[in-house]
This record gives sequence, C-alpha cells and structure tokens, in this order.
Amino acid sequence: MTQPAASPALDLISRGTDEILKREDLAERLASGRPLRVKAGFDPTAPDLHLGHTVLLNKMRQFQDLGHTVIFLIGDFTGMIGDPSGKSATRPPLSREDVLANARTYEAQVFKVLDREKTEVRFNSEWFGKMSAADMIRLAGQHTVARMLERDEFAKRFAAQQSIAIHEFLYPLVQGYDSVALEADVECGGTDQKFNLLMGRGLQEHHGQKPQVVLTMPLLVGLDGVNKMGKSLGNYIGVNEPAIDIVNKTMKIGDALMWDWIELLSFDISIDEAKALKADVAAGLNPRDIKLRLARELATRFHDAAAAETAIAGWHAAVTGQGDTTLLALQDVAIPAEGIRIAALLTAAGITPSNSEANRKLKERAVKVEGVVVEDPNASFAPGFEGVLQVGKRNFARVRLVAG
Amino acid sequence: MTQPAASPALDLISRGTDEILKREDLAERLASGRPLRVKAGFDPTAPDLHLGHTVLLNKMRQFQDLGHTVIFLIGDFTGMIGDPSGKSATRPPLSREDVLANARTYEAQVFKVLDREKTEVRFNSEWFGKMSAADMIRLAGQHTVARMLERDEFAKRFAAQQSIAIHEFLYPLVQGYDSVALEADVECGGTDQKFNLLMGRGLQEHHGQKPQVVLTMPLLVGLDGVNKMGKSLGNYIGVNEPAIDIVNKTMKIGDALMWDWIELLSFDISIDEAKALKADVAAGLNPRDIKLRLARELATRFHDAAAAETAIAGWHAAVTGQGDTTLLALQDVAIPAEGIRIAALLTAAGITPSNSEANRKLKERAVKVEGVVVEDPNASFAPGFEGVLQVGKRNFARVRLVAG
Repeated sequence: MTQPAASPALDLISRGTDEILKREDLAERLASGRPLRVKAGFDPTAPDLHLGHTVLLNKMRQFQDLGHTVIFLIGDFTGMIGDPSGKSATRPPLSREDVLANARTYEAQVFKVLDREKTEVRFNSEWFGKMSAADMIRLAGQHTVARMLERDEFAKRFAAQQSIAIHEFLYPLVQGYDSVALEADVECGGTDQKFNLLMGRGLQEHHGQKPQVVLTMPLLVGLDGVNKMGKSLGNYIGVNEPAIDIVNKTMKIGDALMWDWIELLSFDISIDEAKALKADVAAGLNPRDIKLRLARELATRFHDAAAAETAIAGWHAAVTGQGDTTLLALQDVAIPAEGIRIAALLTAAGITPSNSEANRKLKERAVKVEGVVVEDPNASFAPGFEGVLQVGKRNFARVRLVAG
Repeated sequence: MTQPAASPALDLISRGTDEILKREDLAERLASGRPLRVKAGFDPTAPDLHLGHTVLLNKMRQFQDLGHTVIFLIGDFTGMIGDPSGKSATRPPLSREDVLANARTYEAQVFKVLDREKTEVRFNSEWFGKMSAADMIRLAGQHTVARMLERDEFAKRFAAQQSIAIHEFLYPLVQGYDSVALEADVECGGTDQKFNLLMGRGLQEHHGQKPQVVLTMPLLVGLDGVNKMGKSLGNYIGVNEPAIDIVNKTMKIGDALMWDWIELLSFDISIDEAKALKADVAAGLNPRDIKLRLARELATRFHDAAAAETAIAGWHAAVTGQGDTTLLALQDVAIPAEGIRIAALLTAAGITPSNSEANRKLKERAVKVEGVVVEDPNASFAPGFEGVLQVGKRNFARVRLVAG
C-alpha cells in the first residue's frame, strides 16, 4: 500500500485536531470518493450548547462540506437507565418524552452549525432497546477489567479508592458498540473521549468491520484563557446567547486565546490566512481588528449577518462611548402608564443591577440620557420616550418606553 | 430480640458446616415453623457427580427431612452464553437441548440423595431469559469493581496480571440475583462459593427482601487424604460407580479421613455416636469396622441394601482371600462357543488388564480357579462353567460362562 498523498480534504479535516488514528487510514478513506459515515455521540441530558461543544460540530460540518454523512448520535439508552448505583442524584433516569424533548432542543442548536440535509439524527436505544441481558453479557466478554482500568478516569478513581460501580465498565462498551451498529467510518470526540472512541475500534474489529478512524478535538479554552470552557466556571458563550453578548464576550478574550479560537471556531479564516495575520500583528496590526472579524463570524453563525452588524455597532458604541448609537438594538421597556423614575428605568433597561446602584451612579454624575448628564433622581420618563441611556463609559441601552 | 435457644434442628443443620451467616437468623427461621426455601446452584454442564458433590446434597436432604423446600437451581442462563471472551475452549455455549439433557442426567443422580417430592428443580433462564440489556446494566450498578476484586479468585488473577473479562464480573451478580428471583431463605454452597452467596444477600437487601442465610460446606477431601475430591486427580468415588467400587474405595481411605467423611457423608452415624466411636477406637476397636459401616451406608444410598451386602462380601472375600466367595456378585461372561483359554478369560472377567499380564500372572503362579493354582496357559474353559477366579490376593471374580 502506498501512502496516500496529502490532499486539501485531509488538510481541512486535520485542522485543529488533537489526534487522528490512523491518519493514513483517514487519507485513504477520504480519497476513496465514497461518502463516509462520521459519528459523534452526545449526552441525552438537557442540552445547552456553548462554543466548546461547537468545536466538534464544526469538524462535523467540515466533513459535510466535503460530501460526507454525519451521524448525530444521542445516547439515550444509558440516559434512560440513569445511575443504577444510586450514587448520582443528578442522573435520574430520563423518560422517552424527556429524550425527545431534549433532542428537539439539541436540533434547534446544532443545526446552526450542521447541515440538516446531511445529518442523520439517531438514538442508540434503537439497537440497545432490542438487546437482551445475554447480549449485554456477550458484549462484556469482549473486553477485560484491566483494559478498562487503563482508562484515565477509572485509573484515578481506582487508585484513590473511590468506588466504581460495575455498570460504569459497561458504558464504554455501549458507546463502542454504537459504532458497530452504525458502521461508522470515523468517530469524532473530545480528547477526553479517546478511550471510548478506541473501544469502538476494538468492537468493530471483533464484529468483522474495518475499525473506524478516531479523530479527537482539543477542549476549547474558555473566556478566562485558562480553563476548559464550561457552564460551571461561567467562562462560556452559549450558542443561544444574544448577538451582542457573543460579540462583547469574544472581544474581551486575550490575544493568545484568539488564535486558538480561530483555529477551532472559524471557517472564514483559513490556516494560511491565520499565519499571515499573525505576521501582520507582529508588524503592528491591532489584534482587535482580527478579534472583531471572529466575533462577527460567530454572531452571524448563531444569529444572522444583520444581527451581527447591530451587535458590532453596539459594542463599538459602548467601547468608544461615541459612534452611531442608533445602531444599538432598540429595546422595548414596559413601564407604568404614569411614567418611571430614572433609577428604575436604568435597572429595567438592564444597565444597572439595582435601583440603589443606579442612584449611586446618578450621584457620581455617571448617568447620561441622550448624551446629557442626568443627576436628578426625580427625573421621570413617560411611555413614548425613545432614546439612548448610558451608565459609565461602556454601558448603553437604546430604549423605547411602552405602557405595560 | 432474644437469642433463639439451640434446637435439634439447628444442631442437625450445623453439622459439618464451615460457616453459617448469620447463625441466629437461621435459628430464628428454623424456629418459625414456616417451610424455608433452601437454594443451591449447580452448573449446567454435563454432570457426573461424585461424593464431593453430595456433601451439599446431604445438607439439602437434612433440610428436607425437617420439612423445608429445596431448590435445585440449574444455572443454564450463563451456560447457554458460554464464554464470550472466547478464552475457554472448554466452555462452548450449551443449547436448550443440552441443558435439558444434562438436567435429566442430574436428576438421575441427585435423587439418590434428595427427596424428589420436596425438591423444586429450577432453571435461571426462567427469569434471566426475559431480562433486557438495560436490566443487566441496572444489576451491574448494584456492586462495585473494588468489591468484585475482593473475591479471592479475581484478586489473585488481577495481582498476577491474568486477564479477567468484564462479563466475569457479571456472573456473581447473576447468581446473586437468582436468590432474589427465588426469594431464598437459605443458600448452601461450598466454601469456595462464599463470595457469590454473599452477593445474594446484598442483592436481596437491595430488592427489599430479607437477606438469605448463607451456609457453606467444606470441600470433601478425596481418596488420597490430601486433595479436594475431583475428577482430574482421580481421587473420587462417583455416585454412579458399582457398589463394589464404592465399598472397595471407601475401605481404603485413611482413618483420619474416615472421621471427616462420617461427619459430611453419613446420616446413619450421628455426631454423638461418632464421638463415642472415636473413644472406642482409642480403646482398641478396629477402625475398619467403622469404615465398613460407612461403606455399607454409601453403597446402599447409591444402589440398595442387597447390592451393598454383595459388595461388602466381595470386598471381604478379596481382602482375606477367603470367606464366602459365593457372596460375590455372579458375573455372566460371554465366550466363544468353542471355549476360551485361561488368560483371555481372566481379562474378559476384568481381573487382569490384558492377556499378556494374565500370562505373566500364570507364570508367577498367582492365578487360582476355585482356589486351585493354575499354571498351564492352555487351560481352557467352556460355556456352562461357573466358579471363582482369583489373581493375586485381592482380585476375585465369580463368573458364569455363556456362549455369545
């Protein structure tokens, strides 16, 4: 077998990956011209996706753009079992209805990235729901305890004498068997999933299939520039967040992190261009201009081009304290028919956290209405008012007051 | 709760046991007057029982004699799976027909000890055959990896880096769950089964049942007086062996082993009587007289009283080289109509292994016919002859020659 030559497809798929096993096998399959079956598994628990999750979705989208079929696999079978050892109160069994509702929530989010036409949404209860206890025992016979304890997470817990329930040894086998059932050519996952992805290779081989290519993506670092993006740390951008938040948060990330994000999140900026941009920055280009391009791309992806432009303008107005504030999204604020005092209005518009904070800002002469400083706490606004409110240098809101 | 008083029933059940967990619980259940459900599990592989297996059956029989129900459980569910890791060529999956055929073979043997009327023969495929993969995962969630590795056999293999397939962790759970399905009050097993029996307690508790009493019996030492009785060492007495073999083999065991065998195998000699007999032996009684009583009891159990008496007489004749050889079982030997030479006759009667060995014995003047030494290798016998053949001091056969 001769080594397949590098190809633009292989370059695109390789972008940002942590590991490809085996690269030559992927090259060969990509070169075959056959549409590949590219699998990625997702938890069936209530999904609320953030940019970190989209790293994987982006890779899948690249496969789709090359003409391949993506399988969005929802692991509902184990989700519907929950945690039988009863140790995790946070893993109650999901009902069939829960699973379907969560799937719909997923779809509303993932099709912001994936091409719906080239995506198979599948549930592994489709095959595991038909399996007998005897089948599960046979599956369990295909791996050893020692092999399972090689998995990082298990090895650590075992060494620390933290309990591992036996069913936890079955779950990687379940995930691996999914690849058999789906006849996957490629499985994509985070680097933390590598063990489970390899499980699929072993089981496919056992079932007479060619072992899938395993492709791992690094975990996206969050807004803090240090930790993996996640909900618990609050260092994330949710795919359902308003465009203005996507832009504002993206514009605040560090310059080093920006390059990582471009590699993992941008379709627009190619690797070659990113290299050129790095050189430009070294030569004096303000990284903010590149960040802005990334922010625009992300806001467009999760909303649309118009929303992205409005958000960019809003960010610009907020940052510079000038510029065209009419580009800020107009926000309807419901107030009593008899009118509202300035502090309550600032809070209702979301630019002060409380009336007392608003009053403090008034005393500091940090509040402007239509560019004019307002100090009087008794200043009042009636329904019909429309204008730009400002607190400090960066907090703006363009509001229209309606009686409600 | 007051400690239940010791009772004759508790004494009987305690006889010969290695361990009872918990003894006070057994005492209480025995005192309740309710018929208890007493479970013991058996492999579904082709059974060929020996005295070692009957240790457990005897204990079950004692429960039956006290009015309790014995459940003879055949673990066919896992037997029909075989060894899915493919490592054991000796554990091919059994078919439903294999299992039923083996069950019939079992029954022919175990009802020499158990009371058929008070025995439920059950198969665990009855409940496991209906279980889904999800049920098996739930079952696996009820124990931990660390707990499973506490099992002696697993601990040793793990330490020696011998592979343990994951399904092997499921089998103790399967056995344990059988106790749940059967609502067992007591489970009996060998000391080597203790871990699995305790598994039943844990799972019953998990399912809201009162945990079964676990009763372990020691492993019977074989004819060599050293090793556990087993087929591979050839130190066993099979329950289907001819009465004469049961007697001959029993009569050859050492005196120390005799007391163990009495404790575990005799119903006839009570513990109190055994104590008295020990004192008698210390005072000069020949232990052979006690061994003879045990041999008679065993031969009667696996055949009948008449067969036992014939066998005892044969043993006596063989040992003493005298005595009433007419008590030897008469054996029809088919020979050619034209007659048979002495060497071929000895071999046909089973007292020499080959004609050449028979000729050697003739030369040694070690062959007698009706008590008279025969040396002539040409001595010939015709159909109709009836008499006692002897080779050396101990090998006798009483034969009748028929044309065949």
